[in-house]
Amino acid sequence: MTPGELVATFIAAIERKDLDAACALVTADCEYDNVPMSKVFGPEGIKTVLAPFVGNCSAIDWVVHHQAETGNVVMNERTDRFEMGGRWIELGVAGLFVIRDGKIALWRDYFDQGQFTKAISG
Amino acid sequence: MTPGELVATFIAAIERKDLDAACALVTADCEYDNVPMSKVFGPEGIKTVLAPFVGNCSAIDWVVHHQAETGNVVMNERTDRFEMGGRWIELGVAGLFVIRDGKIALWRDYFDQGQFTKAISG
Repeated sequence: MTPGELVATFIAAIERKDLDAACALVTADCEYDNVPMSKVFGPEGIKTVLAPFVGNCSAIDWVVHHQAETGNVVMNERTDRFEMGGRWIELGVAGLFVIRDGKIALWRDYFDQGQFTKAISG
Repeated sequence: MTPGELVATFIAAIERKDLDAACALVTADCEYDNVPMSKVFGPEGIKTVLAPFVGNCSAIDWVVHHQAETGNVVMNERTDRFEMGGRWIELGVAGLFVIRDGKIALWRDYFDQGQFTKAISG
């Protein structure tokens, strides 16, 4: 897989709510940084952040509007959509992924925390 | 120039506070979208947003940490640094640039408005 294909496969696993499959694609020391909120490390750190959130979703759909790839760096512009409590919430995100040894070693998402809070609270 | 070189040249002009040179590199209908804040269109729209801000800076330094380029799409991860009133303020940004006919047709920056407000207010 190219780095871009790896990122697409990772996102597809999250959309299936299969965090084990997603986390099999990250390095043991992977940094997952939600820039305005917090960062965690490694597969267990990622699961700690995502599992409660994903567990509250009836469906997940991340729409990739643009993606660019140079060497081991992949960046994409997305609308991350989550179905919760019968309605879809949406968040605009720009993501950075750095690949090492065929796995994601850094995943950093830039977004506005105010937009996230507003989307969640409806 | 490649799309990535065009973006680097555009950023260098902003760092020199030469908005005329920067805006010579965008299309007449260029969309400049500061995602959590507002969007404007065209060289005049961009100058309306940037000129007062740039005018208040004694120096501008945008550090590009990562950049990826595929076709007409360039994305980068930056720390945008502005020297104002004798101190440097910094903002983490992920930027998207879409190139058309050798000019920037879309410039969209993702960041956290709360971080921006906090940085400005010190």
